[in-house]
Amino acid sequence: MRFNGHFLELAESYLFSTIAQKAAAHVAANPDAAVIRLGIGDVTRPLPPVAVAAMTAAVAEMGTDAGFRGYGPEQGYPFLREAIRDYYGTKGVELAADEIYVGDGAKSDIGNILDLFDKENRVIIPDPVYPAYLDANIMAGREIVYIEGDESNNFLPMPDSISGKADIIYICSPNNPTGSVYNREQLKAWVDYACENEAVILFDAAYECFITDKGLPTSIYEIPGAKNCAIEIGTLSKMGGFTGVRCGYTVVPHDLIFGDFKLGKMWMRRQATKFNGVSYIVQRGAEAVFTPQGLTECRENIAYYMDNAALIAQTMTELGIWHVGGENAPYIWLKCPGGLTSWEFFDKILREAHVVGTPGAGFGAKGEGFFRLSAFNSRENVVEAMNRLRGLKM
Amino acid sequence: MRFNGHFLELAESYLFSTIAQKAAAHVAANPDAAVIRLGIGDVTRPLPPVAVAAMTAAVAEMGTDAGFRGYGPEQGYPFLREAIRDYYGTKGVELAADEIYVGDGAKSDIGNILDLFDKENRVIIPDPVYPAYLDANIMAGREIVYIEGDESNNFLPMPDSISGKADIIYICSPNNPTGSVYNREQLKAWVDYACENEAVILFDAAYECFITDKGLPTSIYEIPGAKNCAIEIGTLSKMGGFTGVRCGYTVVPHDLIFGDFKLGKMWMRRQATKFNGVSYIVQRGAEAVFTPQGLTECRENIAYYMDNAALIAQTMTELGIWHVGGENAPYIWLKCPGGLTSWEFFDKILREAHVVGTPGAGFGAKGEGFFRLSAFNSRENVVEAMNRLRGLKM
Repeated sequence: MRFNGHFLELAESYLFSTIAQKAAAHVAANPDAAVIRLGIGDVTRPLPPVAVAAMTAAVAEMGTDAGFRGYGPEQGYPFLREAIRDYYGTKGVELAADEIYVGDGAKSDIGNILDLFDKENRVIIPDPVYPAYLDANIMAGREIVYIEGDESNNFLPMPDSISGKADIIYICSPNNPTGSVYNREQLKAWVDYACENEAVILFDAAYECFITDKGLPTSIYEIPGAKNCAIEIGTLSKMGGFTGVRCGYTVVPHDLIFGDFKLGKMWMRRQATKFNGVSYIVQRGAEAVFTPQGLTECRENIAYYMDNAALIAQTMTELGIWHVGGENAPYIWLKCPGGLTSWEFFDKILREAHVVGTPGAGFGAKGEGFFRLSAFNSRENVVEAMNRLRGLKM
Repeated sequence: MRFNGHFLELAESYLFSTIAQKAAAHVAANPDAAVIRLGIGDVTRPLPPVAVAAMTAAVAEMGTDAGFRGYGPEQGYPFLREAIRDYYGTKGVELAADEIYVGDGAKSDIGNILDLFDKENRVIIPDPVYPAYLDANIMAGREIVYIEGDESNNFLPMPDSISGKADIIYICSPNNPTGSVYNREQLKAWVDYACENEAVILFDAAYECFITDKGLPTSIYEIPGAKNCAIEIGTLSKMGGFTGVRCGYTVVPHDLIFGDFKLGKMWMRRQATKFNGVSYIVQRGAEAVFTPQGLTECRENIAYYMDNAALIAQTMTELGIWHVGGENAPYIWLKCPGGLTSWEFFDKILREAHVVGTPGAGFGAKGEGFFRLSAFNSRENVVEAMNRLRGLKM
């Protein structure tokens, strides 16, 4: 028996588990402290009422002879794929419903889509970025090449920073953790580069719903040529508050064909073999999110979080702390004051302000010295956390 | 860019899609025929009332500030892992709750668990068997060795039929499609073989709830030594009627350690990287299935299906058709009468009796000449289908 030795190359502990452990230890040692968590990117507002109503009805249906449904289509029910297609229509992006594959969340699809690619590919990963891209490719034993974000490029690295050949390119815009968003010209440069180099872009659109600036693209398919080079992964997690409900989608355009390799057909086959569709109940909830009433309810929640983000950004400005994000994303990415490392700053604000954030080093080497604060919490908690940070000696 | 060329080695069409297409064409050509589907292994009875009540309550919770839950643990909520642990306790199998990993269904876990193993392994797959085992390993480019079921061994091949080295061994008991079940002595031979040869058994227990014979093992962990060599995959699909709800579980015992490779830790890492847990709503429904009331309600549904199975088996006996299964499994595996191939028999009973079954050839070369009938339908439909088959010239 041979095991997958690449697992031994993974860094020991997953970022958020370490944070959870440190926070738990702090709580245990300071039982009276009111710890405020601005760490993991998890929504806090209840589900939109339309989704609750739709799922309640779906559960009831499943308890009746007439309404019961067993296995659904692996690709997702047409009612949901059509709703997602129409949502893209509102962005001016025309998709066919069978270019959309419903899944149980962006993390699953981003990891599992790699089954379509050979081990022998050079993978381009931004630094800093969501750590699952890296780990999923380490597990598969692929060569990884970083493109570096820093203050000079506002954490938006461009194709000219790639040395050597690129095969698979991850783009996360709005970026997690930095909150930076590529503009149209920048994304066009990426699409042109991928088309010229026969590379495939894996475009993580998990945070598209936070883009408020009308000039910024919320889908890579707003860029001409993208259907020839890009797979886009979306999710209801932030849009509908579905982090605990689990629903996402992956777009594989019909035009993504490279010789014998028809990527949509391959993904369908992968999913038909190793996946059995998303819960019918969840799909009915997701469908409701994309109704006019659902979109209205979701956007109220999003506006609430974005008001939190503005408060955090404003506080950083007051404190003279360099930062990006917070305008079209629920994350504020700041430079740790006083030359602290990111875990030192984590420990400092946990110890002195009982505030949990996310150390930049957890998102890559270039994240060292930076820190992520998330807008996902109640207004009261954000105001209180900012007051506490204002009171610190930094 | 290099794509995964192994996708081109997959047989063109997935079994159940082909059946669905043929059945749809028949319906289109015969709009007045009342087609009865005894094909795909999908439950038809509504969800147990306790699961409906639990999921209704969970949906309501998620719509409130106090009850909302975001990301849950990737491994599953403790309340469900403890319920599954206690269910194993009723079989006399002692597990720790952290040896249990909740997933979105057996098909996902059976496919995804392969991430833990190197490409260079010899995979032992029964023939005939559930086709996803084969396809998932073809995609990964592994060497596949069949062990053959036939009339002489009641479709229960034993380790002495393996030629050469075995690394990964699939066992499906009760078997899909044949309904055959390994007894204790036979499973012990498999466990002993795996332990002696440093092989890992992937034990698919999807149909364990149909075993009515108290002498037959419903978990491989009833066999001493199994915790050193076996991963078991279970599901709520048949037990709770959850095929459209999506919940399963994988057991990776603490003792599954091979040098540096701790399989439980590896699976946890795989899931934390490429999966984000099962819907909270679904997990509450699954928890309800394992309550005393839930088990009672589920067993009523199971008894209903097993009465159907008995009717089908009895009809085959009347017709003088060789068959196995149907006693501890919801499938009857029969030898096509008149020397027909399995697709010929499929076409014959679809055309002449408007009954859809599953051709044995879809489950492997040794399935040729055999046919699967499923007990998942209403009593009325099963009675009617059997009457129609009795009227055929075979």
